[in-house]
Amino acid sequence: MRAGSSTSSIGKNVANRTGFRVVGTSVPRVDAVEKVTGRARYTGDIVLPGMLHGKVLRSPHPHARIRAIDARRAEQVPGVVAVLTRDDLKDIDPYYGPVVQDRPLLALDRVRYAGDPVAAVAAESEATAEQAASRILVEYEELPAAVGVAAALAPGAPRIHEGPHRAGEERLSVKPIPGTNICHHERLVRGDVERGFAEADLVVEDTFTFPMVYHYALEPHTVVAHWDKDALTVWASAQHPFLVRGELARIFRLPLARVRMIIPFVGGGFGSKSYTKIEPLVAALARKAGRPVRVAQSVSESMHTTRRHSVTCRIKTGVKRDGTLVAKACAIHLDTGAYADNGPQVANRAAQRVIGPYRIPHLQIDAYAVYTNSVPAGSFRSIGAPQSIWACESQMDIIAERLGIDPLALRLKNVLKRGELVRTGMKPLDGDISVGLRKTAEALGWRRRPGADGRGLGLACGFMNAGAFPVSIAIVRLHADGSATLLVGTTEIGQGARTVLSQIAAEELALPLSEVTVARGDTDAMPFDRSTGSSRSTTLMGLAVQRAAREVRDQLVKIGAKLLRAPTRAIEVRNGTLSAGRRKVMSYADVIAGHFGLPGGELVGRGYVRPPGGKPVNPVFWEIGIGGADVEVDRETGQLTIRRYVSAADVGKAINPRECEGQDEGAAMMGLGHTLFEAIRYEDDQIVNPNLIDYRVPLFTDLPEEFVALLVENGDGPGPYGAKGMGEGGIVGVSPAVANALARATGVRVRDLPLTPERVWRALRQSDGSKENHGDRLSSD
Amino acid sequence: MRAGSSTSSIGKNVANRTGFRVVGTSVPRVDAVEKVTGRARYTGDIVLPGMLHGKVLRSPHPHARIRAIDARRAEQVPGVVAVLTRDDLKDIDPYYGPVVQDRPLLALDRVRYAGDPVAAVAAESEATAEQAASRILVEYEELPAAVGVAAALAPGAPRIHEGPHRAGEERLSVKPIPGTNICHHERLVRGDVERGFAEADLVVEDTFTFPMVYHYALEPHTVVAHWDKDALTVWASAQHPFLVRGELARIFRLPLARVRMIIPFVGGGFGSKSYTKIEPLVAALARKAGRPVRVAQSVSESMHTTRRHSVTCRIKTGVKRDGTLVAKACAIHLDTGAYADNGPQVANRAAQRVIGPYRIPHLQIDAYAVYTNSVPAGSFRSIGAPQSIWACESQMDIIAERLGIDPLALRLKNVLKRGELVRTGMKPLDGDISVGLRKTAEALGWRRRPGADGRGLGLACGFMNAGAFPVSIAIVRLHADGSATLLVGTTEIGQGARTVLSQIAAEELALPLSEVTVARGDTDAMPFDRSTGSSRSTTLMGLAVQRAAREVRDQLVKIGAKLLRAPTRAIEVRNGTLSAGRRKVMSYADVIAGHFGLPGGELVGRGYVRPPGGKPVNPVFWEIGIGGADVEVDRETGQLTIRRYVSAADVGKAINPRECEGQDEGAAMMGLGHTLFEAIRYEDDQIVNPNLIDYRVPLFTDLPEEFVALLVENGDGPGPYGAKGMGEGGIVGVSPAVANALARATGVRVRDLPLTPERVWRALRQSDGSKENHGDRLSSD
Repeated sequence: MRAGSSTSSIGKNVANRTGFRVVGTSVPRVDAVEKVTGRARYTGDIVLPGMLHGKVLRSPHPHARIRAIDARRAEQVPGVVAVLTRDDLKDIDPYYGPVVQDRPLLALDRVRYAGDPVAAVAAESEATAEQAASRILVEYEELPAAVGVAAALAPGAPRIHEGPHRAGEERLSVKPIPGTNICHHERLVRGDVERGFAEADLVVEDTFTFPMVYHYALEPHTVVAHWDKDALTVWASAQHPFLVRGELARIFRLPLARVRMIIPFVGGGFGSKSYTKIEPLVAALARKAGRPVRVAQSVSESMHTTRRHSVTCRIKTGVKRDGTLVAKACAIHLDTGAYADNGPQVANRAAQRVIGPYRIPHLQIDAYAVYTNSVPAGSFRSIGAPQSIWACESQMDIIAERLGIDPLALRLKNVLKRGELVRTGMKPLDGDISVGLRKTAEALGWRRRPGADGRGLGLACGFMNAGAFPVSIAIVRLHADGSATLLVGTTEIGQGARTVLSQIAAEELALPLSEVTVARGDTDAMPFDRSTGSSRSTTLMGLAVQRAAREVRDQLVKIGAKLLRAPTRAIEVRNGTLSAGRRKVMSYADVIAGHFGLPGGELVGRGYVRPPGGKPVNPVFWEIGIGGADVEVDRETGQLTIRRYVSAADVGKAINPRECEGQDEGAAMMGLGHTLFEAIRYEDDQIVNPNLIDYRVPLFTDLPEEFVALLVENGDGPGPYGAKGMGEGGIVGVSPAVANALARATGVRVRDLPLTPERVWRALRQSDGSKENHGDRLSSD
Repeated sequence: MRAGSSTSSIGKNVANRTGFRVVGTSVPRVDAVEKVTGRARYTGDIVLPGMLHGKVLRSPHPHARIRAIDARRAEQVPGVVAVLTRDDLKDIDPYYGPVVQDRPLLALDRVRYAGDPVAAVAAESEATAEQAASRILVEYEELPAAVGVAAALAPGAPRIHEGPHRAGEERLSVKPIPGTNICHHERLVRGDVERGFAEADLVVEDTFTFPMVYHYALEPHTVVAHWDKDALTVWASAQHPFLVRGELARIFRLPLARVRMIIPFVGGGFGSKSYTKIEPLVAALARKAGRPVRVAQSVSESMHTTRRHSVTCRIKTGVKRDGTLVAKACAIHLDTGAYADNGPQVANRAAQRVIGPYRIPHLQIDAYAVYTNSVPAGSFRSIGAPQSIWACESQMDIIAERLGIDPLALRLKNVLKRGELVRTGMKPLDGDISVGLRKTAEALGWRRRPGADGRGLGLACGFMNAGAFPVSIAIVRLHADGSATLLVGTTEIGQGARTVLSQIAAEELALPLSEVTVARGDTDAMPFDRSTGSSRSTTLMGLAVQRAAREVRDQLVKIGAKLLRAPTRAIEVRNGTLSAGRRKVMSYADVIAGHFGLPGGELVGRGYVRPPGGKPVNPVFWEIGIGGADVEVDRETGQLTIRRYVSAADVGKAINPRECEGQDEGAAMMGLGHTLFEAIRYEDDQIVNPNLIDYRVPLFTDLPEEFVALLVENGDGPGPYGAKGMGEGGIVGVSPAVANALARATGVRVRDLPLTPERVWRALRQSDGSKENHGDRLSSD
């Protein structure tokens, strides 16, 4: 990240294709100045006339029945306007959830984790609301709790949900296992896994664990809700405003046209603001108060709202002596917490992603999302992937070592080729992983002898079915002076969507970037977009913007041809003008004025992206992440220092190369968090580190001395100009690459994250004590 | 307005055409509850983080050179953040104006009226800003002033503008008279007026005056401005947000895409919020302060911002013995105040409208907009018409009396017929005035003998070229649940536009009205609309909404046909469903879900309204206003009591009959203001009654005992379902109808407004003193 930062492009450089002006250029972010000058307005900056402040009373118990709630003492506190309890939810549908609607906006009969919202207070000040909330008397009947997957799956474990629950909007077929706390069981089978193991020369079996982690977006969840008679306006830091709108409309029985989501600047998402979080609770509180209400959560409250799934992954792989993979069996248990949220989809993705980008004829993967009495887990950058690829790619190195094959060679031997079928019914592989692997190894200096200087090199790769459901719609408006405004429902969460979408529109409309503006997020104005997540916006919304801009351009050309008295095919569009030969030139402004008869009017274009026949190709694209780490191990302290980190991202076409690098670096550095430091710690049934002091995130001093971002640009993505999404791939390789480097430096294999100095030091000591311990368990099965 | 209120429809009743569900129905206003419960948010309710409050320092002199401005003592007041003076305008283009750009946002070298903004202060509170403003030292060099048209036209009068000025957006060809204070001279000539007078049997000449009046919208001008780097957001109570956007973009040298106008609820406009008013000043103040600024004017400040033109109208008419009009010559002087604003267009309209809806072969009309050192005059409901129709229609009764012809008969003899050419290059008359006149007379009980009981009946009519420039664009969005949102740039100023546009969309989309929402006004989201004024929104934006809704419907039908496996022509659209026979029925929601493959997505339709070839037919439609008054005169006090008032409006098709009646009543009652009470009074060079105590507006107790609204519905308008605009016609007939009634009751003709008890009493006394005084001057010219 310091002096040594560098980037290189590999593959056919589409950026040099004649004619690109704005696309492929590292223009500064269109929102940079607003953000660095502090002018950017976030939801927490919204002030409405008569606005109240809300605070939520949360359960201290992990599992309890609510016998009674007495809010009278709270209501008597001066300055309190409303106290919301389960009694206020009788005329609405209080349940929500993206996959199964299992979560009430306030606890009804039961609380299911320590932190579960039980009541909420709206008052003139936050302090008053907090004080009043503490005066609400709740009579609990404590129930046996199951914190952690082991407890939840133990015989006789308390049942956390009785079910069945209604399905949510995500069309995953949810398969709970009746009579258990298993919320969803995902099974993938190919070939005959037992036959595969029988044919294998070596069978390796390992169990890896991945901790609960928190997204730690700088902005905790913040929502302002305001009712106008039977119309609801919600300001929220929401990644999926249209899905939240849908849930609010259903909950409060309103037409979609009467629910308005406004998305100001968002201080980071990373999945923590996917789907619906506290919006229904705040809307219900404002409804009762009859005044606007703002709830601005603290970090601790947000850490009690959502997190990443902790995972235990048992993985057994059969391999031929020459390194050919023949069979793989996995059992993945994901701690999905008290409510399903996106857990079933995370389990689905973990199951798919644990396979790795390899050709394996025999498979049996079982992934279980398990309800527990802890904070609900949901989406988090590259859902299910860091956990499963941690296991898969650590084990690849274990296999390589056991077979005496170079880990890079082992991967190259088995990796899927471009165009190869990944799984029946899915899109064939649309990228070239082997090229990326080779380039990453090369940038890492792979030929260097490992372990010589207390340093080791490690590699890892993964690929993810990405893009989510492909429905995005954009409107592009060309104004009378030739400047343009985009109406897009994509949430700018720091990923640079506004910049990239502006570049696409500027390119298509032949305008300078400064003439293009993206209107603020507002579902009353922006057309539908499925979501901001799954690396989908550049690809899908980018395509919608491209189409909308082209529709505008087509109108412009048609009008211009008439005004210039030339056939449309003779019209050239360049730099804000139309021309038909050297003498016939008109600015866009003149064309529009000529059409409308005054210096006003505008042209409106629409871009629809949808799956043909309503049936999407899955995935929209394969997102490939490749990581390489050069790690130095301090054997005295167990401290790992990342000397160099190489990350390769197959972006198809980098619309804005610097932003792509930034995304890739950001993803890798986020991966460094769960690799080296981060873990939400439960003691008994409470989180003991819900703050920045006790929950350790990477500091600037933890960053690699050198970071190399490789952008693979083959123009082979389904997005505009061959782009595909990125920004999630960078996170998946970090843990296995670092652990593989540690193993290659020291011979010590650690299977649990994070790789804290203490854990590494203990592993090193244990290894020093018994040199014959390979760090892996050989299975003869 | 009380018990006797009644409405009847005449003409072919299109409302009964089979199939109308929502159109033609008096549904309650869609914003009624928000308004009556106080939940509606106006610009003055906007609070932004860090927002400052602005106050304007105004000139005490009607005309002076500014020698120096010293703001230091103001800047030192604690809480003051910025003081804006002419020194801060050097990097921008400070001039604006719709017809000529003659007005700087702050006085530069000179002040031109008492009240002209000289400096502005932004401070933490309004009180601080006001206190600081009073500390700004301005050194003036007083100049001779011309308050009133007589002073401004006197030989040797001080020149108020040196000119020439750049043209504004309104494409009126401005003709100043060099070397004078005449800002614009409008001349209309037809035939040979002198020959006409020579051929006449009777020539009548009169001079009428009409006072300066103020719109008295309940909400004075209020603006909030906020800068984000090089993007400007302005919340304003603006009727023409897109025109204001254009001026702001030009002044601050920004692309249109970087200027955002947000229009919250507006507390009445009536033309006072047409075009650009204080927006540039507030934007410049916020720019200097580096923080958002709100300026909420007082009534007095707004009365020092804009007003209606006072007019002196000399009118000479030649007529045959049988009542046939042969010639008319008019000299109309309009006091346009210190800056042109819309004055030249008002003069243009006054010239056209003074002719009346009559066939007159010989014409010469001269209208002069004259700069004076008083508050600038601009648009006001039915620009130029109340003043000129007051003169024209009063004189028609004078002629009738002189010829011994019934005033109704005189009008019917001369009135233009439907389809008759009005003037070369203009649209032929598209309504039937004679039917309206007869019905009005009938509703008034015209046959009653006048004057018998101290009561008299009076009639008047007028017709106005209305609709302004015909460019309006709408977007209609059909959401996944089948509800719809309209994006329209029309400002809801109380006229009911949101309700009527919702009805049109609901009708076209076959949805209940409750499923249709109009998004809040915001130029970042709404496509271009020329303006909200000139009775244009139902006709032009209504048409745009109809087209946009039909574009959505077409998409829906096409998709539905595919999903239902039926030809598009077999698809019936009804009540939120598509069907092809009894068995094949799908809700909109199912059609959209089938198309997009998920319960999301939406369909977007656009509606463009523009003049073909960029060249509009002028006018869009003729707005006809007919009034009839039954007036009781108290000879002791001079007080007039309106027993009954009949107003007929030719609306083509009443989309919402009750709202039409409301508009018509409102217009007539507003006319009662300038007829009976209202006048801005200048003493020396200062307004002496800039407040509700001293400026008398009609009270509820002043309203007619009975109000009859006649809606003429012939389905002959250019708008949707044959609608045409209304809401301005009702104001024009009041003054002449009342004065004509007074004359018929008492024989006394008053030519000056308002008809205050004192003025009427004096006229009655004078008449008692010299019975031979007819109240009109016979000209033998």
